[in-house]
Amino acid sequence: MAEPAFTDPTTLLPAVAQDAASGQVLMLAYMNREAYEETLRTGRAVYYSRSKQRLWRKGEQSGNEQLVEQVLIDCDADAIVLRVKQLGGAACHTGHQSCFYREVTDQGLRVVGERVFNPDDVYGPPQS
Amino acid sequence: MAEPAFTDPTTLLPAVAQDAASGQVLMLAYMNREAYEETLRTGRAVYYSRSKQRLWRKGEQSGNEQLVEQVLIDCDADAIVLRVKQLGGAACHTGHQSCFYREVTDQGLRVVGERVFNPDDVYGPPQS
Repeated sequence: MAEPAFTDPTTLLPAVAQDAASGQVLMLAYMNREAYEETLRTGRAVYYSRSKQRLWRKGEQSGNEQLVEQVLIDCDADAIVLRVKQLGGAACHTGHQSCFYREVTDQGLRVVGERVFNPDDVYGPPQS
Repeated sequence: MAEPAFTDPTTLLPAVAQDAASGQVLMLAYMNREAYEETLRTGRAVYYSRSKQRLWRKGEQSGNEQLVEQVLIDCDADAIVLRVKQLGGAACHTGHQSCFYREVTDQGLRVVGERVFNPDDVYGPPQS
Protein backbone atom coordinates (compact mmCIF):
# COMPACT_ATOMS: atom_id res chain seq x y z
CA MET A 1 0.00 0.00 0.00
CA ALA A 2 1.41 3.30 -1.10
CA GLU A 3 -0.13 5.56 1.51
CA PRO A 4 -2.17 5.35 4.69
CA ALA A 5 -5.48 3.60 4.22
CA PHE A 6 -7.84 6.54 4.56
CA THR A 7 -10.49 4.65 2.68
CA ASP A 8 -12.91 7.55 2.93
CA PRO A 9 -12.80 11.11 4.32
CA THR A 10 -14.24 10.01 7.68
CA THR A 11 -11.74 7.20 8.27
CA LEU A 12 -9.63 7.80 11.38
CA LEU A 13 -6.24 6.19 11.83
CA PRO A 14 -4.20 6.22 15.05
CA ALA A 15 -1.07 8.36 15.01
CA VAL A 16 1.67 8.02 17.61
CA ALA A 17 3.84 11.05 18.28
CA GLN A 18 7.33 10.13 19.38
CA ASP A 19 10.04 12.53 20.49
CA ALA A 20 12.62 12.32 17.71
CA ALA A 21 15.53 13.00 20.03
CA SER A 22 14.71 10.93 23.11
CA GLY A 23 12.47 8.25 21.59
CA GLN A 24 9.81 8.90 24.26
CA VAL A 25 6.27 8.15 23.13
CA LEU A 26 4.47 11.45 23.70
CA MET A 27 0.85 10.79 22.79
CA LEU A 28 -1.57 8.88 20.64
CA ALA A 29 -4.22 10.71 18.68
CA TYR A 30 -6.18 10.21 15.47
CA MET A 31 -5.92 11.58 11.96
CA ASN A 32 -8.36 11.77 9.12
CA ARG A 33 -7.09 12.27 5.59
CA GLU A 34 -7.32 16.05 5.85
CA ALA A 35 -5.27 16.12 9.07
CA TYR A 36 -2.68 13.80 7.54
CA GLU A 37 -2.34 15.90 4.39
CA GLU A 38 -2.08 19.15 6.34
CA THR A 39 0.60 17.56 8.54
CA LEU A 40 2.65 16.59 5.49
CA ARG A 41 2.16 20.00 3.88
CA THR A 42 2.94 22.15 6.92
CA GLY A 43 5.42 19.98 8.83
CA ARG A 44 3.36 20.51 12.00
CA ALA A 45 1.27 17.79 13.61
CA VAL A 46 -2.45 18.12 12.92
CA TYR A 47 -4.90 15.61 14.34
CA TYR A 48 -8.62 15.08 14.23
CA SER A 49 -10.20 15.61 17.64
CA ARG A 50 -12.89 13.03 18.24
CA SER A 51 -14.31 15.07 21.13
CA LYS A 52 -14.34 18.40 19.28
CA GLN A 53 -15.15 16.73 15.94
CA ARG A 54 -12.83 19.00 14.02
CA LEU A 55 -9.19 19.34 12.99
CA TRP A 56 -6.95 19.92 15.95
CA ARG A 57 -3.73 21.74 15.18
CA LYS A 58 -1.57 20.52 18.03
CA GLY A 59 -0.51 23.52 20.12
CA GLU A 60 -3.24 25.81 18.78
CA GLN A 61 -4.14 26.77 22.36
CA SER A 62 -1.03 25.90 24.38
CA GLY A 63 1.56 26.89 21.80
CA ASN A 64 3.12 23.46 22.25
CA GLU A 65 3.31 22.59 18.59
CA GLN A 66 4.98 19.47 17.23
CA LEU A 67 7.47 19.94 14.39
CA VAL A 68 7.43 16.79 12.33
CA GLU A 69 10.82 15.37 11.40
CA GLN A 70 9.72 12.02 10.00
CA VAL A 71 6.47 10.26 9.15
CA LEU A 72 6.39 6.46 9.24
CA ILE A 73 3.57 4.10 8.31
CA ASP A 74 3.15 0.50 9.30
CA CYS A 75 2.95 -2.71 7.30
CA ASP A 76 -0.84 -2.54 7.01
CA ALA A 77 -0.78 1.22 6.31
CA ASP A 78 -3.36 1.75 9.01
CA ALA A 79 -1.23 3.35 11.73
CA ILE A 80 1.18 6.28 11.66
CA VAL A 81 4.22 7.33 13.68
CA LEU A 82 5.29 10.96 13.73
CA ARG A 83 8.81 11.60 14.93
CA VAL A 84 8.61 15.15 16.25
CA LYS A 85 10.32 17.96 18.02
CA GLN A 86 7.94 18.89 20.84
CA LEU A 87 7.85 22.62 21.46
CA GLY A 88 7.30 23.77 25.04
CA GLY A 89 8.72 20.51 26.34
CA ALA A 90 5.32 18.92 26.99
CA ALA A 91 2.84 17.13 24.79
CA CYS A 92 0.16 16.55 27.45
CA HIS A 93 -2.56 18.98 28.47
CA THR A 94 -1.80 17.96 32.08
CA GLY A 95 1.63 19.57 31.73
CA HIS A 96 3.52 16.29 31.57
CA GLN A 97 6.13 15.70 28.89
CA SER A 98 4.21 12.67 27.70
CA CYS A 99 0.55 11.74 27.97
CA PHE A 100 1.85 8.31 29.03
CA TYR A 101 3.04 9.49 32.44
CA ARG A 102 1.43 6.72 34.49
CA GLU A 103 2.65 3.18 34.96
CA VAL A 104 0.29 0.31 35.72
CA THR A 105 1.54 -1.60 38.78
CA ASP A 106 0.14 -4.24 41.11
CA GLN A 107 -0.54 -1.42 43.56
CA GLY A 108 -2.38 0.75 41.05
CA LEU A 109 -1.12 3.63 38.94
CA ARG A 110 2.19 5.28 39.63
CA VAL A 111 3.26 8.59 38.11
CA VAL A 112 6.56 8.11 36.29
CA GLY A 113 6.71 11.08 33.95
CA GLU A 114 7.94 14.60 34.40
CA ARG A 115 5.57 17.53 34.64
CA VAL A 116 6.83 20.61 32.82
CA PHE A 117 4.05 23.16 33.34
CA ASN A 118 0.95 23.84 35.41
CA PRO A 119 -2.06 23.53 33.10
CA ASP A 120 -3.84 26.38 34.93
CA ASP A 121 -1.13 28.72 33.63
CA VAL A 122 -1.77 27.67 30.05
CA TYR A 123 -5.47 26.97 29.83
CA GLY A 124 -6.68 29.11 32.74
CA PRO A 125 -8.16 27.81 36.01
CA PRO A 126 -10.71 25.01 35.85
CA GLN A 127 -14.21 26.26 35.08
CA SER A 128 -16.62 26.05 38.02
CA MET B 1 -9.20 7.24 35.80
CA ALA B 2 -7.69 4.31 37.57
CA GLU B 3 -7.41 1.88 34.70
CA PRO B 4 -7.84 1.78 30.94
CA ALA B 5 -11.32 2.74 29.82
CA PHE B 6 -12.57 -0.63 28.66
CA THR B 7 -16.12 0.53 29.11
CA ASP B 8 -17.49 -2.83 27.98
CA PRO B 9 -16.00 -6.18 26.97
CA THR B 10 -16.04 -5.26 23.26
CA THR B 11 -14.21 -1.95 23.65
CA LEU B 12 -10.90 -1.92 21.83
CA LEU B 13 -8.10 0.44 22.80
CA PRO B 14 -4.91 1.03 20.80
CA ALA B 15 -1.72 -0.38 22.29
CA VAL B 16 1.72 0.71 21.14
CA ALA B 17 4.59 -1.73 21.63
CA GLN B 18 7.90 0.01 22.11
CA ASP B 19 11.29 -1.67 22.41
CA ALA B 20 12.27 -1.03 26.03
CA ALA B 21 15.97 -0.93 25.25
CA SER B 22 16.14 1.08 22.02
CA GLY B 23 12.92 3.09 22.26
CA GLN B 24 11.92 2.02 18.75
CA VAL B 25 8.16 1.89 18.18
CA LEU B 26 7.59 -1.69 17.06
CA MET B 27 3.89 -1.91 16.27
CA LEU B 28 0.42 -0.70 17.05
CA ALA B 29 -2.35 -3.16 17.77
CA TYR B 30 -5.55 -3.29 19.76
CA MET B 31 -6.56 -4.74 23.10
CA ASN B 32 -9.89 -5.62 24.59
CA ARG B 33 -10.20 -6.00 28.35
CA GLU B 34 -9.45 -9.71 28.19
CA ALA B 35 -6.24 -9.15 26.21
CA TYR B 36 -5.17 -6.40 28.60
CA GLU B 37 -5.77 -8.53 31.67
CA GLU B 38 -3.98 -11.55 30.21
CA THR B 39 -1.05 -9.29 29.31
CA LEU B 40 -0.78 -8.05 32.90
CA ARG B 41 -1.17 -11.56 34.29
CA THR B 42 1.32 -13.31 32.03
CA GLY B 43 3.83 -10.55 31.27
CA ARG B 44 3.55 -11.35 27.57
CA ALA B 45 1.80 -9.10 25.07
CA VAL B 46 -1.66 -10.27 24.10
CA TYR B 47 -3.74 -8.29 21.62
CA TYR B 48 -7.16 -8.61 20.06
CA SER B 49 -6.93 -9.30 16.35
CA ARG B 50 -9.59 -7.36 14.50
CA SER B 51 -9.12 -9.50 11.39
CA LYS B 52 -9.20 -12.85 13.20
CA GLN B 53 -11.73 -11.58 15.77
CA ARG B 54 -10.04 -13.38 18.62
CA LEU B 55 -7.24 -12.96 21.14
CA TRP B 56 -3.86 -12.88 19.50
CA ARG B 57 -0.98 -13.97 21.67
CA LYS B 58 1.87 -12.15 19.98
CA GLY B 59 4.37 -14.71 18.73
CA GLU B 60 1.92 -17.61 18.87
CA GLN B 61 2.90 -18.57 15.30
CA SER B 62 6.29 -16.92 14.78
CA GLY B 63 7.66 -17.45 18.28
CA ASN B 64 8.46 -13.74 18.38
CA GLU B 65 6.83 -13.05 21.71
CA GLN B 66 7.01 -9.71 23.50
CA LEU B 67 8.06 -9.78 27.15
CA VAL B 68 6.40 -6.82 28.85
CA GLU B 69 8.65 -4.74 31.08
CA GLN B 70 6.33 -1.78 31.69
CA VAL B 71 2.72 -0.83 30.94
CA LEU B 72 1.85 2.85 30.63
CA ILE B 73 -1.55 4.47 30.11
CA ASP B 74 -2.28 7.93 28.85
CA CYS B 75 -4.04 10.91 30.41
CA ASP B 76 -7.43 9.88 29.03
CA ALA B 77 -6.84 6.22 29.87
CA ASP B 78 -7.79 5.24 26.34
CA ALA B 79 -4.40 4.31 24.93
CA ILE B 80 -1.68 1.97 26.19
CA VAL B 81 2.08 1.74 25.75
CA LEU B 82 3.85 -1.56 26.34
CA ARG B 83 7.58 -1.32 26.83
CA VAL B 84 8.78 -4.75 25.74
CA LYS B 85 11.66 -7.03 25.04
CA GLN B 86 11.03 -8.30 21.52
CA LEU B 87 12.04 -11.92 21.12
CA GLY B 88 13.39 -12.99 17.73
CA GLY B 89 14.46 -9.43 17.00
CA ALA B 90 11.43 -8.60 14.86
CA ALA B 91 7.89 -7.52 15.64
CA CYS B 92 6.59 -7.43 12.09
CA HIS B 93 5.19 -10.34 10.09
CA THR B 94 7.21 -8.98 7.12
CA GLY B 95 10.40 -9.80 9.02
CA HIS B 96 11.26 -6.20 9.82
CA GLN B 97 12.25 -5.19 13.33
CA SER B 98 9.36 -2.73 13.41
CA CYS B 99 6.08 -2.62 11.54
CA PHE B 100 6.91 1.07 10.96
CA TYR B 101 9.69 0.35 8.49
CA ARG B 102 8.57 2.79 5.78
CA GLU B 103 9.03 6.52 5.71
CA VAL B 104 6.66 8.83 3.85
CA THR B 105 8.67 11.14 1.55
CA ASP B 106 7.87 13.52 -1.29
CA GLN B 107 8.97 10.76 -3.65
CA GLY B 108 6.77 8.09 -2.07
CA LEU B 109 7.58 5.46 0.52
CA ARG B 110 11.14 4.62 1.42
CA VAL B 111 12.15 1.56 3.43
CA VAL B 112 14.12 2.67 6.46
CA GLY B 113 13.89 -0.32 8.80
CA GLU B 114 15.95 -3.43 9.10
CA ARG B 115 14.66 -6.80 7.99
CA VAL B 116 15.63 -9.60 10.32
CA PHE B 117 14.00 -12.67 8.80
CA ASN B 118 12.34 -13.91 5.64
CA PRO B 119 8.66 -14.42 6.38
CA ASP B 120 8.53 -17.49 4.12
CA ASP B 121 10.86 -19.22 6.57
CA VAL B 122 8.51 -18.53 9.46
CA TYR B 123 5.02 -18.68 8.01
CA GLY B 124 5.69 -20.89 4.99
CA PRO B 125 5.52 -19.78 1.35
CA PRO B 126 2.60 -17.61 0.23
CA GLN B 127 -0.52 -19.63 -0.57
CA SER B 128 -1.37 -19.78 -4.27
